[in-house]
Amino acid sequence: MGTAGTAGAVRPGAIMSAEIDQQPEVLGRLWAEQAPELRRIRAELDRRRHRFVLLAARGTSDHAALYAKYLVEVCQALPAGLVSPSTSTIYGVRPDLSGVLHISVSQSGGSPDLVDSLKAARSCGATTVAVTNNVDSELARAAEFVVDVRAGTERAVAATKSYTAQLLALYLLLGPEHGVADTGSDAARLAEAAHATLQGMDAVAATAARYRFANRLVTTARGYSYATAREAALKLMETSYLGAQAFSGADLLHGPMAMIDGETPVIAVATPGRGGTAMTPVLQTLYERKADLVIVGGTDEALAAAPTASVLPVRTEGIPEELHPVLDILPLQQLALRLALERGVDPDAPRGLRKVTETW
Amino acid sequence: MGTAGTAGAVRPGAIMSAEIDQQPEVLGRLWAEQAPELRRIRAELDRRRHRFVLLAARGTSDHAALYAKYLVEVCQALPAGLVSPSTSTIYGVRPDLSGVLHISVSQSGGSPDLVDSLKAARSCGATTVAVTNNVDSELARAAEFVVDVRAGTERAVAATKSYTAQLLALYLLLGPEHGVADTGSDAARLAEAAHATLQGMDAVAATAARYRFANRLVTTARGYSYATAREAALKLMETSYLGAQAFSGADLLHGPMAMIDGETPVIAVATPGRGGTAMTPVLQTLYERKADLVIVGGTDEALAAAPTASVLPVRTEGIPEELHPVLDILPLQQLALRLALERGVDPDAPRGLRKVTETW
Repeated sequence: MGTAGTAGAVRPGAIMSAEIDQQPEVLGRLWAEQAPELRRIRAELDRRRHRFVLLAARGTSDHAALYAKYLVEVCQALPAGLVSPSTSTIYGVRPDLSGVLHISVSQSGGSPDLVDSLKAARSCGATTVAVTNNVDSELARAAEFVVDVRAGTERAVAATKSYTAQLLALYLLLGPEHGVADTGSDAARLAEAAHATLQGMDAVAATAARYRFANRLVTTARGYSYATAREAALKLMETSYLGAQAFSGADLLHGPMAMIDGETPVIAVATPGRGGTAMTPVLQTLYERKADLVIVGGTDEALAAAPTASVLPVRTEGIPEELHPVLDILPLQQLALRLALERGVDPDAPRGLRKVTETW
Repeated sequence: MGTAGTAGAVRPGAIMSAEIDQQPEVLGRLWAEQAPELRRIRAELDRRRHRFVLLAARGTSDHAALYAKYLVEVCQALPAGLVSPSTSTIYGVRPDLSGVLHISVSQSGGSPDLVDSLKAARSCGATTVAVTNNVDSELARAAEFVVDVRAGTERAVAATKSYTAQLLALYLLLGPEHGVADTGSDAARLAEAAHATLQGMDAVAATAARYRFANRLVTTARGYSYATAREAALKLMETSYLGAQAFSGADLLHGPMAMIDGETPVIAVATPGRGGTAMTPVLQTLYERKADLVIVGGTDEALAAAPTASVLPVRTEGIPEELHPVLDILPLQQLALRLALERGVDPDAPRGLRKVTETW
């Protein structure tokens, strides 16, 4: 964390590739080792009966926060919002946040506006939680509760393992009650599913070859996996300099569908569950508009709606829908890596990016 | 509203062009005529002392909702969140929303998922408000309070006047207290500023010519005008089939900056005020990365940070920062129209779009 230069890697993409491959182990370990601590924090949060949850993050972590928003709304049945840090850091607002749970998500814990935003929330009465990969960070020190996602040092500028670790930590903190009840077998099952999903490199390689000369691309999903669409678009932008845009399936039908034609690659996420099912009319429309379509996951229902689509497989058997985002991002991380390499770009040394971005 | 076909127009873009030009009149009339009714609704909402505000919308109206989120957080000092309608419509969640203010924003008032989401919120105890251009719509009938934005029938598929009317209505409902106190002179001043801003067609024409062959573009802003960046990107996608992406200035520094180079047009909004000032480090970085940069507004501070940028002027003299989004979108609507025409596309008949989009 916090190391700016990573250009000294031996092979282009070696760092990002290694960190992608560490995810099954990271996820299994996080679940197995952190479940007791997360149970403790969760019980304390439950006891306080919050009326509302605010989530604050930037960049990749913002997509973990978006995922958490769905967990809060669906599993906790509480209203939730993503914080615009600028309202406290630029406009200096000090609302009454008693009864509000403020969760900041940050790999490095070092972004000054997130630290300021969390401190402001705490001084306004909110319960504050930092979900971070750096428990020695200023963000962690400023928060009342700290969730250590234990992804290990992340050296690649494009975050991968810290993202899926954040998702899993947030699932254990905010997801279905039974999620933190058992540990061993669930943890092992998720690690295995992640490992199996990462074996689908043939489909990833074919997709990367196909998009070698694309200069823009659209990603889309609904429900929990909307976070995946957003994170995949960011990853492709960071590593491959593609103009990648993410839309919720519903929003895509409101306007942006006009720019979809046979020249527009679209990556849609549709795994088994209610979010995947809700993608069916979107996939039908994309198919009718002759979009060049890749479906991540790819249920029978999805392929019936878009029979010519190609598939990036995801191994979701035995994994609840709420956890699919931990898996369906994996082939898309691999795609971002592979596409960068196809295009002669080193994904470990993207232009103009540092590992910790300072915004105020 | 609700008429799907608009292809019968005499001149390409004639409908969108006429509706863009109606905005000074629409804004002046809305403020002058609706202020008493909005004062009444506002007093009733104040009386109920909500603890939290949820905003629900799709497409263009979602950007009006984003603007409203800043108003709620800064001017009402209340936490706010944008609703993910899918959590009620797909996942069937029924949270306790007593003490919550739920505001739906929709030009047509006809999107089924917004109607269902508002009904669900009302049945869960929320105060519900519909901000709409169609007071006979199902959304208006379902809501406890209705705000009529009175933009007149909007025929263009790309919404323009209904958007700025929504912004103004939301300002009067949620903005600074004094906003609804006076009426006549403020209304006239805003109408004049809108009229003056719409006269900047030379700069718009030059920008449209410059981007004739661009196939993607980035928009960015911070604070209230972040909504403008989002809406401009959507408008350019809808009418000109550009791959346009919007980022908050802070988020742009977290990743997407990697895809910015001398080949990437960037439209940044920087008008006088705290949001514009917060754009300075973003503009500096864009300038260093040799982005092809257009600044909407263009303060001295912004031009000092990016001296080679061109400017789309906005006449904000005497208009408070909170109202700038009503003005700074105007040259960008004109740009979307003009760019479509330059590219031989009829912005009144975009591919694959209908005026009312049905999502569930």
